[in-house]
Amino acid sequence: MSAHRILALLELVASGGINPKAALEKLALDPFESLDFATIDHHRSLRQGFPEVVFGSGKSAAQIVAIAECLAAKDDGFLVTRVEPEAREALTQRFPQAVSNEMARTVRLVGASPPPVGSGVILIVTAGTSDLPVAEEASETAVAMGNVVHRLTDVGVAGIHRLLARADDLRSARVIIVVAGMDGALPSVIGGLVSCPVIAVPTSVGYGAAFSGVAPLLTALNSCAAGVTVVNIDNGFGAAAAASRITHGT
Amino acid sequence: MSAHRILALLELVASGGINPKAALEKLALDPFESLDFATIDHHRSLRQGFPEVVFGSGKSAAQIVAIAECLAAKDDGFLVTRVEPEAREALTQRFPQAVSNEMARTVRLVGASPPPVGSGVILIVTAGTSDLPVAEEASETAVAMGNVVHRLTDVGVAGIHRLLARADDLRSARVIIVVAGMDGALPSVIGGLVSCPVIAVPTSVGYGAAFSGVAPLLTALNSCAAGVTVVNIDNGFGAAAAASRITHGT
Amino acid sequence: MSAHRILALLELVASGGINPKAALEKLALDPFESLDFATIDHHRSLRQGFPEVVFGSGKSAAQIVAIAECLAAKDDGFLVTRVEPEAREALTQRFPQAVSNEMARTVRLVGASPPPVGSGVILIVTAGTSDLPVAEEASETAVAMGNVVHRLTDVGVAGIHRLLARADDLRSARVIIVVAGMDGALPSVIGGLVSCPVIAVPTSVGYGAAFSGVAPLLTALNSCAAGVTVVNIDNGFGAAAAASRITHGT
Amino acid sequence: MSAHRILALLELVASGGINPKAALEKLALDPFESLDFATIDHHRSLRQGFPEVVFGSGKSAAQIVAIAECLAAKDDGFLVTRVEPEAREALTQRFPQAVSNEMARTVRLVGASPPPVGSGVILIVTAGTSDLPVAEEASETAVAMGNVVHRLTDVGVAGIHRLLARADDLRSARVIIVVAGMDGALPSVIGGLVSCPVIAVPTSVGYGAAFSGVAPLLTALNSCAAGVTVVNIDNGFGAAAAASRITHGT
Amino acid sequence: MSAHRILALLELVASGGINPKAALEKLALDPFESLDFATIDHHRSLRQGFPEVVFGSGKSAAQIVAIAECLAAKDDGFLVTRVEPEAREALTQRFPQAVSNEMARTVRLVGASPPPVGSGVILIVTAGTSDLPVAEEASETAVAMGNVVHRLTDVGVAGIHRLLARADDLRSARVIIVVAGMDGALPSVIGGLVSCPVIAVPTSVGYGAAFSGVAPLLTALNSCAAGVTVVNIDNGFGAAAAASRITHGT
Amino acid sequence: MSAHRILALLELVASGGINPKAALEKLALDPFESLDFATIDHHRSLRQGFPEVVFGSGKSAAQIVAIAECLAAKDDGFLVTRVEPEAREALTQRFPQAVSNEMARTVRLVGASPPPVGSGVILIVTAGTSDLPVAEEASETAVAMGNVVHRLTDVGVAGIHRLLARADDLRSARVIIVVAGMDGALPSVIGGLVSCPVIAVPTSVGYGAAFSGVAPLLTALNSCAAGVTVVNIDNGFGAAAAASRITHGT
Amino acid sequence: MSAHRILALLELVASGGINPKAALEKLALDPFESLDFATIDHHRSLRQGFPEVVFGSGKSAAQIVAIAECLAAKDDGFLVTRVEPEAREALTQRFPQAVSNEMARTVRLVGASPPPVGSGVILIVTAGTSDLPVAEEASETAVAMGNVVHRLTDVGVAGIHRLLARADDLRSARVIIVVAGMDGALPSVIGGLVSCPVIAVPTSVGYGAAFSGVAPLLTALNSCAAGVTVVNIDNGFGAAAAASRITHGT
Amino acid sequence: MSAHRILALLELVASGGINPKAALEKLALDPFESLDFATIDHHRSLRQGFPEVVFGSGKSAAQIVAIAECLAAKDDGFLVTRVEPEAREALTQRFPQAVSNEMARTVRLVGASPPPVGSGVILIVTAGTSDLPVAEEASETAVAMGNVVHRLTDVGVAGIHRLLARADDLRSARVIIVVAGMDGALPSVIGGLVSCPVIAVPTSVGYGAAFSGVAPLLTALNSCAAGVTVVNIDNGFGAAAAASRITHGT
Repeated sequence: MSAHRILALLELVASGGINPKAALEKLALDPFESLDFATIDHHRSLRQGFPEVVFGSGKSAAQIVAIAECLAAKDDGFLVTRVEPEAREALTQRFPQAVSNEMARTVRLVGASPPPVGSGVILIVTAGTSDLPVAEEASETAVAMGNVVHRLTDVGVAGIHRLLARADDLRSARVIIVVAGMDGALPSVIGGLVSCPVIAVPTSVGYGAAFSGVAPLLTALNSCAAGVTVVNIDNGFGAAAAASRITHGT
Repeated sequence: MSAHRILALLELVASGGINPKAALEKLALDPFESLDFATIDHHRSLRQGFPEVVFGSGKSAAQIVAIAECLAAKDDGFLVTRVEPEAREALTQRFPQAVSNEMARTVRLVGASPPPVGSGVILIVTAGTSDLPVAEEASETAVAMGNVVHRLTDVGVAGIHRLLARADDLRSARVIIVVAGMDGALPSVIGGLVSCPVIAVPTSVGYGAAFSGVAPLLTALNSCAAGVTVVNIDNGFGAAAAASRITHGT
Repeated sequence: MSAHRILALLELVASGGINPKAALEKLALDPFESLDFATIDHHRSLRQGFPEVVFGSGKSAAQIVAIAECLAAKDDGFLVTRVEPEAREALTQRFPQAVSNEMARTVRLVGASPPPVGSGVILIVTAGTSDLPVAEEASETAVAMGNVVHRLTDVGVAGIHRLLARADDLRSARVIIVVAGMDGALPSVIGGLVSCPVIAVPTSVGYGAAFSGVAPLLTALNSCAAGVTVVNIDNGFGAAAAASRITHGT
Repeated sequence: MSAHRILALLELVASGGINPKAALEKLALDPFESLDFATIDHHRSLRQGFPEVVFGSGKSAAQIVAIAECLAAKDDGFLVTRVEPEAREALTQRFPQAVSNEMARTVRLVGASPPPVGSGVILIVTAGTSDLPVAEEASETAVAMGNVVHRLTDVGVAGIHRLLARADDLRSARVIIVVAGMDGALPSVIGGLVSCPVIAVPTSVGYGAAFSGVAPLLTALNSCAAGVTVVNIDNGFGAAAAASRITHGT
Repeated sequence: MSAHRILALLELVASGGINPKAALEKLALDPFESLDFATIDHHRSLRQGFPEVVFGSGKSAAQIVAIAECLAAKDDGFLVTRVEPEAREALTQRFPQAVSNEMARTVRLVGASPPPVGSGVILIVTAGTSDLPVAEEASETAVAMGNVVHRLTDVGVAGIHRLLARADDLRSARVIIVVAGMDGALPSVIGGLVSCPVIAVPTSVGYGAAFSGVAPLLTALNSCAAGVTVVNIDNGFGAAAAASRITHGT
Repeated sequence: MSAHRILALLELVASGGINPKAALEKLALDPFESLDFATIDHHRSLRQGFPEVVFGSGKSAAQIVAIAECLAAKDDGFLVTRVEPEAREALTQRFPQAVSNEMARTVRLVGASPPPVGSGVILIVTAGTSDLPVAEEASETAVAMGNVVHRLTDVGVAGIHRLLARADDLRSARVIIVVAGMDGALPSVIGGLVSCPVIAVPTSVGYGAAFSGVAPLLTALNSCAAGVTVVNIDNGFGAAAAASRITHGT
Repeated sequence: MSAHRILALLELVASGGINPKAALEKLALDPFESLDFATIDHHRSLRQGFPEVVFGSGKSAAQIVAIAECLAAKDDGFLVTRVEPEAREALTQRFPQAVSNEMARTVRLVGASPPPVGSGVILIVTAGTSDLPVAEEASETAVAMGNVVHRLTDVGVAGIHRLLARADDLRSARVIIVVAGMDGALPSVIGGLVSCPVIAVPTSVGYGAAFSGVAPLLTALNSCAAGVTVVNIDNGFGAAAAASRITHGT
Repeated sequence: MSAHRILALLELVASGGINPKAALEKLALDPFESLDFATIDHHRSLRQGFPEVVFGSGKSAAQIVAIAECLAAKDDGFLVTRVEPEAREALTQRFPQAVSNEMARTVRLVGASPPPVGSGVILIVTAGTSDLPVAEEASETAVAMGNVVHRLTDVGVAGIHRLLARADDLRSARVIIVVAGMDGALPSVIGGLVSCPVIAVPTSVGYGAAFSGVAPLLTALNSCAAGVTVVNIDNGFGAAAAASRITHGT
């Protein structure tokens, strides 16, 4: 149960819209709930502004659906990432109203009261077309967490005029997520053009000495533009979660 | 010349405090200036809110002083990081009013009009006493860029009650910088306790399979707390620059 | 033939329950036995308290069954780990009474006289649901070697209250096996909360810079909690074998 | 303040040897104490059976002495590892009764009431003469934590008869710590000979493809003897702390 | 055409068994022969005592058969390693008299006049059953190159008595090839027991921190037994070729 | 639109072959064109002498065809590398006149006015038969960019006479591309024999400690022959692009 | 003796300026000359257009001087790279006319007839001031080998307008050497702006995850600008040698 | 005591040159001898044909001298490798007749009855002058173990005619040790030219991507010449020990 939903509930009590006893029942959650194979953290949105996100990889379809049901039972909505086809099928059958994004490998359900919208735009920039799945994961996550998302696609440094032509988009963002594989040079260039926070997501796009994303990861970590931060390879989800922490700060 | 200083100048013109011709002269900077061994980027604070920071490592004392003079000549102030003793000596002799922090390995000069103060507190947390030099670099950088800095020292996960006892400090920060070597577990734990942005700085503290900071770097990149971002090993400067981008956003 | 079974035999001789000649025959094992493709170490349980465990990976179903038969022929029982489906099928067909655990990828047969029960509880803790197969392998091994096993599931550090709420379980164990992938921060946190031996099993859960388990492996090796020891990535078997050495000590 | 010292105090109260008020004062410790650069964890021995051990590397002599004073002020005794010469000098001058071991790079002070003695012998085995400093660190730590320590030196696998001749020593130990660099083959061989817990400490002895201890680290992690656990390269301290957790279990 | 076959031809000429012109024709090879996709080195057996061996991996079945035909056309015999099923099928169909060894992934054809037999026995020792395919490749190669091969299987260091019981076999070999994965401790132990050359073949048997054979490779390179040499991971072929260079020396 | 095509157009205007207005229309390209998932860089051939090459890996067949259509619409021709079978099928169906090379994994379309032919021969040398696919990619690229290509196949250093016999071919080239896996020794040897530029392409041919091409990559980077340059593992395309920059220089 | 010097000699003979016998003597070099510790390759300039360059690292001052004398005795001039202070002292004392460049760590002697000048300008670009020593080594080498060298200093991507302002310099070069450490993003950006060959020299400038130059090395190898080639970390010499092969081609 | 010395003693007994009792005393060695810090293996020469060699690195001068005395007391002679200056001084003062080789970093003492001379020549080839210290270590070791050693210096592949000119030397050797750093291409080339065993010693000569010898190590492990074996980086000692095992075989 998220902080803003608890607040809404309390205001409802104050206004007489609900009697205290009923409110108590709604509030009386344990901080976590134990399934056989998982311990659901029901207080995460109180602490972090968003419910626990389910990492689909390595979990069976049955496990994922059970966890999703446990979250949905609190009207919280859910977001599942890295969903394999079988689990996607199971989830969308169980929750027909859920949004399934195949390229992003995500399924999400909007909760009873969606999270407050963060301040400013999260701009997601990709270096190349092959980086799109990671950008999609970032986009789905950012939207789920209550953010306005813009996109800039395939503007890698090999043709830098494509990027410079979009300087206005870059400068008007509150946070920029830069998704880039291979040489990973784009975050440094963008970091040098703007004053807002820049989060680099190295991707596993490339081959040979790209070492499944190690090359752009190192590039981003060594960015000569001060203040670029980095998340794990292909971690579109993490970048969006970090960006959402920024847009929801006060 | 920073954006806010240009604004101040224009207001001075508007109020008659300076005549337009003199103002023009002050404004007539080239966007960059070429020394023999460096190309100073005088527009960086316009683009990024803070002048170019000088990375002292691998530069001679004479080169560093010359670059510092070039920046100071624009009344901009400067920040030099990774200063070796010889260069520190030369800088403090040339700029007696500069602030020299030996543990942080920094020298900084406050410019004619300091940068605007960011919104909220930057909290710098260290896992152990040996992580202090990196935390000091972060602190010096954050202060130079116009930030309020708080500290929490030696609260590593081996005695987690030390951390939990300080939950209020953690929850009231606008951004948290977590400096940790060895196992680097602290950013994940803090990331799970708060909703504000968390920036991990892995340090080279440790030995053997710490691999000069690779171990805590990987730990931070794989943080199971969503939304932790990471900078290079021992990069206190970069973490503070990223944090300052957040506190100065609008 | 295990030490305690030899003892039992000798006591039987002493009490006249078997005549010496028959006992001799039972004892007259060669220390090892040569198949075409394997050399079975029949004295291992004398030296180490448990018969040779068969590592199923890279062996054909036929080879595994033959080795199992060779062990079972001595009434020793057996444990096969990393069993591929084809070999599992063959083993369970040949030994219908064997216990097959698909998630753990193990098949085990209880011997004529099971091993003595170790002192105290082995507690197996997992950071996330995806770590369960490794925990299962540890559990199967620990049970096979004569141990009482308890479990604590999905209590990773991103929601640390889930762990702290179970402090009593942690403190009452004789040994704790901590199974964790991704950032692998859990062993350090647990190591700081208890005084009993803690054995970390890094898992290959994760992606990108988790490098198939290298990240949590390094985290565990650099644990800032003193006295955490580590086994190979995904090596639930080894952790349980080590824990059983502890519970069976005197 | 350690658990057994608190018990002794309570017994003293029970027997009238101290009045409750004075006892209270002695007990009224904060769980931790904040210096400027460190947060001393005074409850660690309650949780883990031994006070916080000071990792000397990366700390100034002044910092180390201040932390040691803070621990000694509670009559707890202390152990400092990885002490550089300057800090050693400062410590032994401030605490003349402290035990300084140059080869081990440790300084330790016996507290007012030493820890209870663990059950059984900790046997420390080294593969070669160059591994001795790590073995010394392990020995100093084990003794400080209340253990009986035996030694077996320079019995590497290149002359395996040296090891086999000492089988009795190996078999009578409660725990064996095996310290080995280069090929690191010794832990596997010993692990195959005994049934007690074996803790491998890979060392940085060697050159070239030993990669400062990575080679023996990998060897130990892949030990074909079941149940060998591993600590960080050159981490004699950690191995002894783990062994002491075993000997002090119940 | 091998040296000993040329010699035989010349002796035949001397004895009138063949006329010079016919002999010339047989001798009139170019030193190499160009196919579209390969340049066959027909002088390799003159320089190295054995014809070019075909590395099957990455070549199409058609290419392999064409190269084999080109070699067979000189009556030289051939050895193909790392043969995929499709190429194996094609080769055995084309050369029904060829020896196909599925576990070794080799196909070989005995030439018109087999190579001279080397002096002494090549002993191939394996640490575990899963190392057998590599040992088979070594065996096929050694036999093809004219050697007497003995075997010792599954005598890894976890049960070292299995090895010590075979000391006579070890001591009577001219060269020993030791095939071992996981910890790779066996070559060091054997190297310490014998005075003959020992060639270690690390294998990719294992998982996790075995890193597909890197662990036993490093173990072998750092062997504390003087004079152990090493070949590439899983390179049974190379080890046998090296051993054959030793047995064929004078 | 390439530089030479613009020149041709302008000459046509000068000679009256086209009226200025029509010419303007042809010239009035935006410097780039935005699809939903890609931003086509139409000025690349102006800047670099050749249109943007499409990296097929990680793109869907539909995306590749759409990009190819966008390029072909400008009469530019195109080159797609790393084409998976499905995309190859789609491309050749849509552009029946395109040249598809299965071994090279390329599809290319000759544009309305092919690029000018570079000066001198690009010689592509391979160490072994298994290196051919990479050499094919290099060849297709070089031809597409307007070059004369010669080939030398399977002349690795294990039979160095095969190489020395072709010294004339080596010495008459303008640039040499050396494609080699495994030990990657060939670029150094060739670099020592000629004075023209030598570009090494390490390949992923090999196994074990070849580490998917890392071994020959390092060999090439450390070439003791001065002036050998290197491209990414298996990057036949990049080597040819670099060679073409040399042959098209003035 | 270089090709052009032999030609000059032959022309002198033709014109009667020297008698054939004396010319013969001058020509009668062995192809190489054996010192006790070195084998001087006197035909290297015939094969490669420039005499053997002496790699100073790991050689004693006496060895370097002896090799230099051996080269100078043929009137060839010499270039020594990576000269330690002691050897520099010895060389400049023995060859007072030699050019010593301390920042570049080179000493070179102009030969009797300097090499022919290559066609076009070699432009050496550095990302930062700390990259200058490597750029100096490249410059000294290029000059020694007969090239016109231009420079562009400190134009890294964090302030990309500094680079774009110099587009003319970039476009007029025959070859560009880009020297960059840390993120190493500059070669990709430049590679996308020009059509001439671009050679990247990654440098060891940086710290932490720069891994002594590995980060910019990987960046360069994965450049998304087609046709960038790479040399070893800090290898200014190799880049210049490769560039000179290009400028001296025909 | 070596095998051949025991034989000589027995022959002396047979001939009456010594009485049995005195002979017994000479023979009555323990198989090993325990110092405080070392366990001397007195039977090593019986097993391996040469006494234990002392690895000087990481041992104090006092320890080394004590071990040497212990070996010398059995008239065995000794070889110490990797001797630091202080230990060298101590050894040569204690054993004035010992042979000290500063470049090789060895000190050796010829025993009372030197080892039998192996059959054939050990040829030690170096790629460059900087590889000489490793070659010296190999040479000292080979001589100490009773071998005839020839040398070929600075014949790296950048000038391959230097090597080809020495084909006779190469072909007449019994074993060839090839010492090479940087690209490490020489062992492959030599392995392709000869039929005798070739042992590669990669060296740490080089910089950057040579990674302290990893590059030539990988090159050697992936040698495309069949039958090249490899020892650790800079391990001249190990290569010579392996070669001596070959020359002393029967």
